[in-house]
Order: sequence, then structure tokens, then C-alpha cells
Amino acid sequence: MREVFSDASLLQGMLDFEAALASAEARCGVIPAQAAGIITRVCGDARLNTEALGRAAVSAGNLAIPLVRELTALVAQEDGNASGWVHWGATSQDAIDTGLVLQLRRALALLEDDLVRLIRAQAALVRKERGTVMTGRTWLQQALPITFGLKVAGWLDGNLRHLERIKAARSGLAVQFGGAVGTLASLGSDGLAVRGALAEALQLNVPDLPWHSQRDRLVEIACGVGMLVGALGKTARDMALLMQTELGEASEPAAPGRGGSSTMPHKRNPVAAAPILAAALRVPGLVATLLSAMVQEHERGLGGWHAEWEVLPEIFRLAAGALSQSAAVAEALSVDRKAMAANLERSQGVLMAEAVTMALGRFVGRGTAHALLEKAAHEATTSGQPLRTFLEADSTVSQYLTPKDLEHLLDPSNYLGSTQQFVDAVLTRADRI
Amino acid sequence: MREVFSDASLLQGMLDFEAALASAEARCGVIPAQAAGIITRVCGDARLNTEALGRAAVSAGNLAIPLVRELTALVAQEDGNASGWVHWGATSQDAIDTGLVLQLRRALALLEDDLVRLIRAQAALVRKERGTVMTGRTWLQQALPITFGLKVAGWLDGNLRHLERIKAARSGLAVQFGGAVGTLASLGSDGLAVRGALAEALQLNVPDLPWHSQRDRLVEIACGVGMLVGALGKTARDMALLMQTELGEASEPAAPGRGGSSTMPHKRNPVAAAPILAAALRVPGLVATLLSAMVQEHERGLGGWHAEWEVLPEIFRLAAGALSQSAAVAEALSVDRKAMAANLERSQGVLMAEAVTMALGRFVGRGTAHALLEKAAHEATTSGQPLRTFLEADSTVSQYLTPKDLEHLLDPSNYLGSTQQFVDAVLTRADRI
Amino acid sequence: MREVFSDASLLQGMLDFEAALASAEARCGVIPAQAAGIITRVCGDARLNTEALGRAAVSAGNLAIPLVRELTALVAQEDGNASGWVHWGATSQDAIDTGLVLQLRRALALLEDDLVRLIRAQAALVRKERGTVMTGRTWLQQALPITFGLKVAGWLDGNLRHLERIKAARSGLAVQFGGAVGTLASLGSDGLAVRGALAEALQLNVPDLPWHSQRDRLVEIACGVGMLVGALGKTARDMALLMQTELGEASEPAAPGRGGSSTMPHKRNPVAAAPILAAALRVPGLVATLLSAMVQEHERGLGGWHAEWEVLPEIFRLAAGALSQSAAVAEALSVDRKAMAANLERSQGVLMAEAVTMALGRFVGRGTAHALLEKAAHEATTSGQPLRTFLEADSTVSQYLTPKDLEHLLDPSNYLGSTQQFVDAVLTRADRI
Amino acid sequence: MREVFSDASLLQGMLDFEAALASAEARCGVIPAQAAGIITRVCGDARLNTEALGRAAVSAGNLAIPLVRELTALVAQEDGNASGWVHWGATSQDAIDTGLVLQLRRALALLEDDLVRLIRAQAALVRKERGTVMTGRTWLQQALPITFGLKVAGWLDGNLRHLERIKAARSGLAVQFGGAVGTLASLGSDGLAVRGALAEALQLNVPDLPWHSQRDRLVEIACGVGMLVGALGKTARDMALLMQTELGEASEPAAPGRGGSSTMPHKRNPVAAAPILAAALRVPGLVATLLSAMVQEHERGLGGWHAEWEVLPEIFRLAAGALSQSAAVAEALSVDRKAMAANLERSQGVLMAEAVTMALGRFVGRGTAHALLEKAAHEATTSGQPLRTFLEADSTVSQYLTPKDLEHLLDPSNYLGSTQQFVDAVLTRADRI
Repeated sequence: MREVFSDASLLQGMLDFEAALASAEARCGVIPAQAAGIITRVCGDARLNTEALGRAAVSAGNLAIPLVRELTALVAQEDGNASGWVHWGATSQDAIDTGLVLQLRRALALLEDDLVRLIRAQAALVRKERGTVMTGRTWLQQALPITFGLKVAGWLDGNLRHLERIKAARSGLAVQFGGAVGTLASLGSDGLAVRGALAEALQLNVPDLPWHSQRDRLVEIACGVGMLVGALGKTARDMALLMQTELGEASEPAAPGRGGSSTMPHKRNPVAAAPILAAALRVPGLVATLLSAMVQEHERGLGGWHAEWEVLPEIFRLAAGALSQSAAVAEALSVDRKAMAANLERSQGVLMAEAVTMALGRFVGRGTAHALLEKAAHEATTSGQPLRTFLEADSTVSQYLTPKDLEHLLDPSNYLGSTQQFVDAVLTRADRI
Repeated sequence: MREVFSDASLLQGMLDFEAALASAEARCGVIPAQAAGIITRVCGDARLNTEALGRAAVSAGNLAIPLVRELTALVAQEDGNASGWVHWGATSQDAIDTGLVLQLRRALALLEDDLVRLIRAQAALVRKERGTVMTGRTWLQQALPITFGLKVAGWLDGNLRHLERIKAARSGLAVQFGGAVGTLASLGSDGLAVRGALAEALQLNVPDLPWHSQRDRLVEIACGVGMLVGALGKTARDMALLMQTELGEASEPAAPGRGGSSTMPHKRNPVAAAPILAAALRVPGLVATLLSAMVQEHERGLGGWHAEWEVLPEIFRLAAGALSQSAAVAEALSVDRKAMAANLERSQGVLMAEAVTMALGRFVGRGTAHALLEKAAHEATTSGQPLRTFLEADSTVSQYLTPKDLEHLLDPSNYLGSTQQFVDAVLTRADRI
Repeated sequence: MREVFSDASLLQGMLDFEAALASAEARCGVIPAQAAGIITRVCGDARLNTEALGRAAVSAGNLAIPLVRELTALVAQEDGNASGWVHWGATSQDAIDTGLVLQLRRALALLEDDLVRLIRAQAALVRKERGTVMTGRTWLQQALPITFGLKVAGWLDGNLRHLERIKAARSGLAVQFGGAVGTLASLGSDGLAVRGALAEALQLNVPDLPWHSQRDRLVEIACGVGMLVGALGKTARDMALLMQTELGEASEPAAPGRGGSSTMPHKRNPVAAAPILAAALRVPGLVATLLSAMVQEHERGLGGWHAEWEVLPEIFRLAAGALSQSAAVAEALSVDRKAMAANLERSQGVLMAEAVTMALGRFVGRGTAHALLEKAAHEATTSGQPLRTFLEADSTVSQYLTPKDLEHLLDPSNYLGSTQQFVDAVLTRADRI
Repeated sequence: MREVFSDASLLQGMLDFEAALASAEARCGVIPAQAAGIITRVCGDARLNTEALGRAAVSAGNLAIPLVRELTALVAQEDGNASGWVHWGATSQDAIDTGLVLQLRRALALLEDDLVRLIRAQAALVRKERGTVMTGRTWLQQALPITFGLKVAGWLDGNLRHLERIKAARSGLAVQFGGAVGTLASLGSDGLAVRGALAEALQLNVPDLPWHSQRDRLVEIACGVGMLVGALGKTARDMALLMQTELGEASEPAAPGRGGSSTMPHKRNPVAAAPILAAALRVPGLVATLLSAMVQEHERGLGGWHAEWEVLPEIFRLAAGALSQSAAVAEALSVDRKAMAANLERSQGVLMAEAVTMALGRFVGRGTAHALLEKAAHEATTSGQPLRTFLEADSTVSQYLTPKDLEHLLDPSNYLGSTQQFVDAVLTRADRI
């Protein structure tokens, strides 16, 4: 991803635009075919002084201006005549935006690859752990049993939606071509034909209008990637919590030198979770910047457009980092089923209070049952004795529920409801990608 | 919109969930039909003490808990038995989230209505002003001619995409129903059937999994509305700039008492633009909050979920305000064609330098032509004389361009390129809504 | 806090400005004393139609315009002559901004009160728990022993800095008074004298310049409150983590109906942590809005100023809620010293690996010692046996450390370093408030 | 600024910490003086493989761990014994945070230099243009006259406050030193002495407590820089508006190749304003990230800390860029007094309506006068004739105001109120820096 958004790729994106533009204009008879041939060749093989261009961009206001100047000079070295047809009919923003779109296409493809990798790893994990009963937690408190398969299926379910969004973003990318004020005036009546040929050459969609100062296309992509990062953050937070010394239910893969401390020999830190969580903290502010920057003036704006230049790549870099870390963790996650079982037993049945409530509620009403169990759960917790003790001693309970009933009700694996059906639904979708 | 997100609507959304749940469970044979009948009736006619519920919510941690308690009590007044079946198998978040989804459905419908109104008004404006030549501006500088129709078509083009997003959001709304940890454990093997019946009753989609701690569905809606507000902000900024005393090309509708100053008798302030621009400043931070809040722990999170409660309604309130102001402005926009023409003449032809460059460039190369025009434009600007004077005096120019050529080239209405085709493409889409 | 930022307080703030302005102008001989008397009296006793004013504000663009109109009418009912002197020389923004400053003064005082309450409760807790040894955790992993007193002292240390910021904000509040464009033109040569008298009447500072479009004074306050909320969020996150079923070291105060679940009888949710964490998620986006909104045009801006109106109160409301919840928790925190001790023992000495490393390092070098302990810690963790077993079996260890040394080194209470001195330093500051 | 936050400076900051730590510990008799000498020497002259360290940091979780490992190896090459004392008693975060603080000290000094440069340039401009009457604008509408000196004084006034904030930030920087969990346990009873010596060696303040998970110190700096950037954005927006073709009152300095267009020969774009406005759009989201990231867990957090690493440098980079552009513009601003005068005349007196209102209001009451002038202003605007014409024709006006009165009242330079006193107050402060 660093390569996709490197200075070299940035420049190449614009050169690809200029090359495709020259070809398209030649095809439409707007510029001489020979000139187009030379321009295309030079664009494909340009050796540019990145640093000098960067400096010139500061006073020019954008990178396209010095790039076009440099390209024109390079073409002129080959053919003075051809150089006059460089950038014909385009404005800086056409080159910069389309170049960006070409970078985004590669960036989205990279995200898609890693997301597919993550999805496959999570689907495998779901299959493997669909029977592993563990504690479900709400408000950071033990709540009711789930399976680890269901937990991972929850992560996977979101990722399948994010994959759809990434794919839609990729297939919706549109060329930018409007000339100085979005009229393609300098091409007279050839504007739409050239634009069509240009889009075809670059395999991009043709928008109804140039989108110089209507930026929702880009912002939508950023929102999509932002949601993906939020979801990865959720998974990382879950993992970091499960990996706490006191829970120890699942851990990031161990490796020599991984997650140690500079001073504490016993530490195994969740080193993948840290950058993922950091990304989940950083991306929202970056997406907000793009939303704020939508307020772009008139035909081409001032400041808003410029704010996008570094922010969009930054979002992708953070997403790519978070995604690759997430995939690596999912592929080699270490699950401690014993710890899961032990934590489930920890409350000595209190966790199963709802199950008993529901069963008892059928006879005495949900409210009465709830109150009775709340009291029994409280007694069990404060005394440190099993819930069962207090239930068996309760006359209302024993009136409706036999010891065998109670045993069944207090077994977490009997209280999983639609878990397996939920898991199947998600796996079915995962199998289709 | 205030009504949609009022305390009363919030409570009613949850009551609608509880009523539909009881019906669905009766239909699936999970609870007695008679109980469901009573619950449904009470939900439809509950007189609740909003303030007391609000106070109780603070120590309960959410509003559903005291609401369910109150509802149970109200049902018990009718039938002690029925009260035991209230909220059967659901968790607070099922009620709160589904209630919110029901509010969102109404909120999205309101936005859609106003957006259609705005689109219609803008389409009418495009038709009326498609021939009005005016100055296109980039970087806040005069650039090249456009038509006012094209400018409005740019606003409209974005709004047509936003309408698609709003519609998609509305048709994608999904029920929330998972019980305490998303397993529907308390419904045994009836979970999916009940969920299906519940979704049907509420006319909502059935998700593969409960989405208690996977919040991208909501965030996607917020992003969509956020983009709409950004686009409205762009239009408002354009309007405020056009309405500057020195430009005076278009103004918000005038009305007695509208946009005056408490102290300056001559003022006509862009009073619609102010709240729209304020919304465009505020919504990005709110969307970022929802993205940050996606990191929700385990099966149901702590803090992240709670952050959504006021933020999502706030986004809709701001969007609704901005949208209704935008529609009102579009419907009664005051256009000053004379001012547009005068501003276009202001630079005495300098604005048309590109047109001459392109024509001359065909003979002498784009680079040479660009340099020649840059010089002539500079002389015209500093001397205060028309560009034409300097062009006619230039021997290179006169070698290739006749005075008639120059006259044609310097007429803004001859340099509009694909403007009308762009406008038609957008109008075609607008006509289809 | 809701009262401070209620509609009534908003209006009263502006009326207080108008009253003080009339008095000041009378004192400076700018308006008749009699008129000032009537204006002041009416301002102190005005019965306003809040709703009608709200509606009028929409088309006027701000609330001051209809308020001044209404006030003028009310004064005219008493004395037609006096009504001509209402709002003399001021602009809407003078009234609105100064009114806001008056609200902020009350709001900051409220925050200060609750922050002092929180500080006192935390200081008491530090004193009580300064000897309670518990597990220090980094990266959500057990790391080394600390005391609970030190942990609370960390929270307290930040709060003492926040108190300084809140106090500084309160004492730095400045009047807004500049007239339409910040020149006080309509007061001729009396401008500064009136402004001085006005500031004195309201007990506010006199700024060098009106700050109509320089908003850093307000943003600085928001940043200060934002940092406070971030710190409260940190404490709430710590509390929620300590309160996890598996840790159980500290809990929010219990109360009937507090933190229960609508469905699980055994739940004790961290219901105070939830809104505090939600506030910590929400306030950053609101502060960002104010920072973005600093870009206000010319002498008085469009949109940026308007964005502040609801955002600043919202920040204070969220801060007040988070602060009062935090204080209530600190005052009645439930500490489980047994659980703290048990968690410390959990790793059977592995936690103390650093202590042994440091002692052994003096003899064999830190690197060698670190490697040796890393291995021993790994063996202890995987085997489930005490670290001590592996250390005693190691010849290098036994060469330099006696069993007694080891016993001392493995006792957490001997490895607290400067803990008590740190605690004392913070308590000293806390005692001075 | 890029250099201050380069990879090399990042590593050197940490090495400076390690060197100072070794010296401080030798001074306190904690480690051998000879070892400290070697460590210090190696730290001052280390040749590190930045890229390899970067890669190792990914699996280690932070950069300090591989750096300490590398440093230890380098020291061992000189003296095997000394290598055991590297990083003695510190934790990674001590090195990383203190290293960052050392970078911040240099970064703040750079900002201070450029801010002083900007302040000097603006003060000179205020002096030069204090008599230049121009149009004051509110809501982007012409409002009342000001002087250009006052406008610049407004910008300057804010910058003087920002300078105080930058200075306070620099002088408040504190060392980070707490060991693994903030107890300095591994230093036994020597912790505070070593910390004091360390802080002295680095010339940093000694905090009461380590601030590993209390981040307000850093966030406060970010808020301060964020406000500065907001203020620069305000100035840039003003400049861009004044530079509009239709206003033309002030322009960024011209230079060959500066602000041209790739296609329009006549363009002079505000190329400095663009990156400044982009920075003002970007920094708020970054500050929000730091505020969100304050919620750091326990003794040292997970994710929140990591989010700071790139965000804080990014804020400084953006601020430095915006500041240096701002200073360059202020130093060579091009002011067009003729255009200012012409724009002031544009409304043919309507702008002076308030002046007449105030004068007339003394006789007929402010309300009556306001209504009368509102009507006259409206007639003047719609007819295109001078306001004076309508005033002279009005019997109420002529009853109280002579033609000479009117002439005086309609001259903008007579209606500047306290302008010069405001300017003087700001210049006095500017002279003191």
C-alpha cells in the first residue's frame, strides 16, 4: 500500500492519464496520431526528478503543473511539434483526480485481497470452533454462554458486508475530465467523444458530469474503508480483552521477539491489536476531514481539494496495515478452550440464571421468576457457593423444576438457542465469495 | 424531524417493537395469543411518564429497562398472567435498536421527501438558466465562462446520487433481535421463526446475525446523510459567495424581516446559508463519533453503543434543517443575469485567454501560445485595457487569427464546450425520479 | 447544567448584556439615565415568548434580532422614548457572545464544583488504599505490582491539572463588544469608555479587540473541557476493566435497580462508566467542530459562528454528566482487596520476573538476566507451576541469590519503588485546593 | 519540521534519553560511571539501520525495544560489562515519550520562530495600513467601513495569544520516567533521585507522577497548535476572499511560475491560501484523535498511545507548513488601496446607513431611524442611485440633518469609532515580544 501511494505511483498515475488522454484525442482526431504516439511513449518511460517536482508544486499550487511542464519538455526533446499537444484540453485537476482514481483502483484491489484472506481465515475458524462453548459478555460482564464460533461469525458477518462495499467502490470508479471549469470548452464539440475514449482506455466509468467540486464519490470510498477499519478495531478490542492475563481465552500468535517487553521478561503483549486499535482511533478523524472538505467553492475549490491529497492515502495506509495484521492474527490465532471452559464455570452457575428464569417463568410469570433468580444469584455470588444450591433449596423452584431439569438448565451447552443456525447463515455467505 | 426523534417517538418505537414481538411470538406459539393481544393493545395506548422513565434510565443504564418494567405493570393491571410474557426472549438492546430503526425509517422518508423537493426545484432552475452565461470560478478566481444552468446541474448531479443513497438506506433497514448475547437462547429452537415473524410484522429485513456490536449498518446510514449535508454545504457556500455584495449574481429569497441586521439597515444576510454551512461543519464530527464508536466490546458493548443514542438523531436533525433550507432557497432563488453578464465583462477579455490559447496553439504549439497569452493577459490586467488590444497588436496572433476569429474567440458564449450535453445528462436522470 | 444552557438562560444572558449595556452607556453619558433605568428594569423582568422568538430567529438569522425587537417593544410599553436607546451601539453578536460568556461562567463554576468533589473523593480513596497492593497492567496484561492508591493518584493527578485549566478559563472570560464590524463606530469616541463600564458591570475582562471572528478564546475553553472528559473516560475505562467478572477488583456502587439487566438476573452493569465513556467518544468530535469553525470570514463570519451555538453547550452538558457520574462513583467505590490479592497471586510469581531480573542483572548483566527470566517465566506459565520452582532449580540463580533473597524478591509488596513518594506528591497538591 | 520528526530524529531523541539516563544513574551511584561513559558515547555516535529497526518494531510492538536491543549490542562491542546497564530501570515508553518531548521542544521552537516572523510582518503591515479605509464585511456582505490596519490587527491579536500558548507549551515540557508500571520499582529507593538527575540533564520539568496513561500534557500542546492553525486558516480565508477577481483588494505575492494554471494563462491563484486552508481542515480531526486516544487503559494503554505516534508529528508538520506560508504572504502582501476605495464606493453610500441611523436616532429614536434608513437603503439599491439622494428627499431627515451633516455622515473615514485605539492596543503588545 505504501508503494501504491508512493511519490512515484502518484506521478505515474498522472502520466497514465496524460498518455491515455493523448491516445484518446488521437483516436477522436483531435490531435495528430504521431504526437500521441510520442507522448504515450514518453509517459511510459519518464524519468522524473521527484524532489524538484515537489518543490515546484509548492509555488505552482499543485503537482500537475510542474509535471505537465516537465513532460512537455521531455516530449519536446523527441519532437518539438508533439510537445504542443501534451495535456491538450485538460486541467490540472483532471490529471490529479484521475491519477488518484487509478491509485485507488490498485489500493482497493489490495484491500480486497487481504479482506478475502481475513474472511477465509475467519470462516475456517468458525468451522473449527463452532462447538466451543464460552462466555458471552455484555457491558464487559459475563452474561450468557455463546460459542467461540459464533463470536468469530459476528466478526465475519461484518467483513462480508465490507467486502461488498470495497467491491462496489472499485467497480464504481469514474474518470475525471472536464477542463478548467468542467465544460471541456477547449475541445469544442469533441469533449464527450474524447472523454468516452479516455475512460475506455483507462477502463473507468464515465460520469454524467465532471466532479471537480462534487466529492461524494471519493468520500463514499473513504466512509467504506472507515467502516472496515472500525470493524477491525472491534475485533482487535475483543481479542485484546480475551487475551487479558485474567481471561486468557485467545491469544495473538506467538513468535520469537514478538510482544515482549523491554523490561518485563514474562510479557506477551497484543502487538497486533495495538496498531489496529490505533487505526480505529485515527481513521474517523480522517473521514471527518474529507466530509468537511466537501464544501468546495464554485467550479474548483480552494483548500478542500488540497486537504484530500494526503488524507485519502493515509486512510488506505492505515486500513491496509490494520487489515494485514488482522489477517495474520486470524490465520494463526491461539485458542485456549480450557480457559474458556474454566471462565464459564467461574460463576458457579450464576451465568445460567436467565435459563432458569425462562423455564420457571413459564409457570410463575417472567417477573416473579426474574426476582427469584436475582435473589438466588446474589446469594450465590456473595457466598461463593453454586447457584444450584440456592435453587434446590427454594420451594417455588422445586415445585416446578426437578433436579434433572435444573442440571439441564444449568449446562451452558444446552442454552445456545439459534447459535448454529446463525453460524450457518454466515458461513453460507462466506462460501460464496 | 424533531417529532421523529422526540422522547415520545423514542418510546413509541420501543413499544412498537414490544407489540410486534408479542404478536410474532403468539403466531409462533411461543406465548399465549391472549397475552399477546393484551400486550399489543397496551403498547398501542400506553400513557407513560416520560420524565420518570428518563430518571430511571440513568441508574438502569438504558431506557428499555424501566420501559419494560412500566409496560409490564400496565399489562398486569389488565391481566396479571399476560404481564409475564412482556419482552419475552428479548434484551434491552433489541428493543432500543429496533425502535431506533423504526424512527430511522420515518426520518429517511422525511429526508427523501425534502430531497425530492430540492431536486425538482434545482431541475427547474437548470432548465430556466441553461442559457445564462456567467463566470466559472476556480480557486475563487474568475476562470472561464460556464452557464448558471451548468452550475446548478452540478449541485443537482450530486443530489441525485444522494437520493439513491437515502433510498438504499431506507430499503435496507434490518430488525434487531438476538436476546442477551445474540443467541436467542431463551427462545430455544423457536428463535428464527419468531425473528422472521417479528421482521414481517414490522416490515423490516432479517439480518443473518444480530448486530448488537456490529454497527456498520447504522454508520453507513450516517455516512450517507453526512455526504448529503456536505453537498448541501457546498451549494450554500457557492450561494453565499455569489451573493457577496461585490458579485451579486444570485441571492436567497427576500422576505420581510429576513436577513436584516440588528444595527445595519441595508443588510441582506444569507440567512439560509448560515445554518446549512453550520450543519456542514457539525455533521463530520458526529459521523466520526459513530465511526469511533464501532469498537464495541464482545457481545454488547460499553460506551460505544451509548454514544450513538444522541448522535444519530442529531445528524438527522441537522440534515433535515439544512435540507429544508436548501429546498426553500432553490425554489425561490433570485438570479441577477445582468450582474452575471457584467462580471463576465469585468476582465475585458482576459477570462477568454484559454480560448485564444487553444486556437493559437493549433498553429504554434500549446506552450508558445500559453506564454504569449499569459503575457498579453498580464498587460491587459495591469493596464486596465481589453485583452483584444494586445492581441491585435501581436504579430504572431495576427499571422494566424483574423479580427473576426478573435471576436468569436473572445465571446464567452462561444466557449462552452460540452455544457449543454452535460446539462441534458443530469436532467434526464432528474426526470426519472 | 441543563438549566445553564436552557432557552431561558440563553435569553437571560442576552438580556443581562442589554441591561448592563444601557447602564454603562448611561454612566458614560451616552444615553439618558432614565432610559437606562427602564431598560434595565424590563430586562430583569421580561416575560418572553421563547417559542415565537425561536421561530423568528430562523428568518432573522440569529436570536438577538427578534429579542432586541421584542425588548424594544416591551420598553416602549413603558416609555416610548426609552425604547430608542435599547441595544444602542451594539450588534447582535455582541449580545449573543457576551450572553454566552455569562452562561459559560456559570457552567465553569458548576464543573469546578463537581471537579472539586471528585478530587476530594479521589484523595480520600488514595489515603485509604495507599497500602493496597494490586496488579499493575500494561497493554491489558499483568505487568508488575502497584498499589490501588497509586492508581487512583494517577487519576487524581490529571484532575488537579484539569481544575487549574477550568479555573483559568473562568477567570479569563472577556466581554464581547465591537458593534457591527468591530469598530464601535456608532459610539464615536465613547466606545472604549462604554466597553470598560460594560465589562465592569458584568465583571468580565476587557479584551484588546472585539473577537467576533477570532474564536480561540472559546475554543480554548472547549479544549480544556475536552481534556477533562478524556481523563474521565480513562478512569471509567479502568473502572469498567477492573469491574469485569473475571477481575472483580473494584465496582461501581450498588443500588437497587442499578445496573441490572432486563433479562439476566445476575447482571451488575457498570452503568456509570457507559455514559462517561460515551461522553469521551462524543466530545472529541465536538471540539474538532469548534476548531474547524475557527475559519470565520472577515469581520463576522458565516456558518462558523453558527456552528458554535449548540456545540459548546453540548460539550458542557456531556462534561457535566460525565463528571457528576464520576464523582458519585469515586465517593462510593467498592474495592475488593481480596480479589486484588488473588489476581496478584494468579501468575504464581511470574509477575515478579522483572524484580528478579534486576537483582540478578547486577551480577550477570541485564541482558543475561532478562533471557534467563524470560525462559523461566515461560516454563512457569506453560507448566502451571510457580516461577520460584524454576528459579531455585537454576544454577546461575542459586549462585547469586539465596532462597531468602528470592522470597523477598518475589513478594510484590517489596517491589513498589517510589510509589509512596509519588502518592505523597499528588496528595500534597490535592490538599492545597 | 520534517527533519525534527524524521526517523533519524525520532531515534536520536530516544538515544538522548538513554544517554542522559545512564549519566543520571551514574551520578546517583546506581550504575558504574565507566559504563555510563561508554553508553553515552555510543548513544552520541550510533549508526543505526533505520529500516531494520522499523521492521523489528512491528513485531516488538514499539520502536524502543529493538532500539534498546541494538544499542545494547553496540555497547557490548565496546564493553560487555557496560552493555548490561543500558536502559537500566526504564521502560520502552519512558524512552519513547521523553524522546518525543525532546522532539517537541525543537518543534515548538521552530513554530515560535516562524510565529514571531509572522507577528513582526503583520505588525509592520498594521502600521503601514492603519489609515487605509476599506469595507468591513459580515456574513460575506458589505457592512461598514474599517481600516485594513484594523483587519490585520485582528489577525495579529490572535497570533499574539497563540505565541503565549506556544511559549507556555515549550516551558512546560516534562520528562517521562516511571519504569514498567510507573513505580520506578527496579530502582528501589533511588527512583526519584535518578529522575531528578535525568530531568536536569535533559533540562526538562519533573512531573509529580509518570504520565504513561495520562496524556493531557501532550493533548494540550496539540490543542494549542490546533488553535494556531485555525487562526491561520481564518487569515487565509480572508486573504482568498479579498483576492477574488471581483474584490481584488489584497493579493498573495506574485512570483514567476507562482499560482498560474496549467491551462488558463490569466490565472493568479492563491497558492499559499490553499495549503493553509487544507491544514485548517485537517488539524481538527487530528486533535480529535488525540482527545479520543486519552482513554488509555490501566498503567500503560493499548492503541491510544500508539495512535499518538504519527498524529502529533502530523499536526506539527501541517502547522509548520501553514505558518511558513502565512509568514511569507504577510511579508510581501500586495495591497490595492484603489480597489479598496472603489469597493467602498460601490454601494453609493448604502454602507453608511448605520451612521445616519445613529445620528438620526438621537432625535427620532433608534427604531424609527432604523426603519427609515432600511427603506432608503432599499430604494438606493434597487434604483442604483446614491443613498444621499433619498435621504435628502426625506422630510424627517432634512428636519434634523443638514446636507453638511449628511456629507460628514456618509464619509466612511468619519465612521471608524475606536479603530485606532484598538490598533494601538494590539501594536503595544506586539512591540513587547
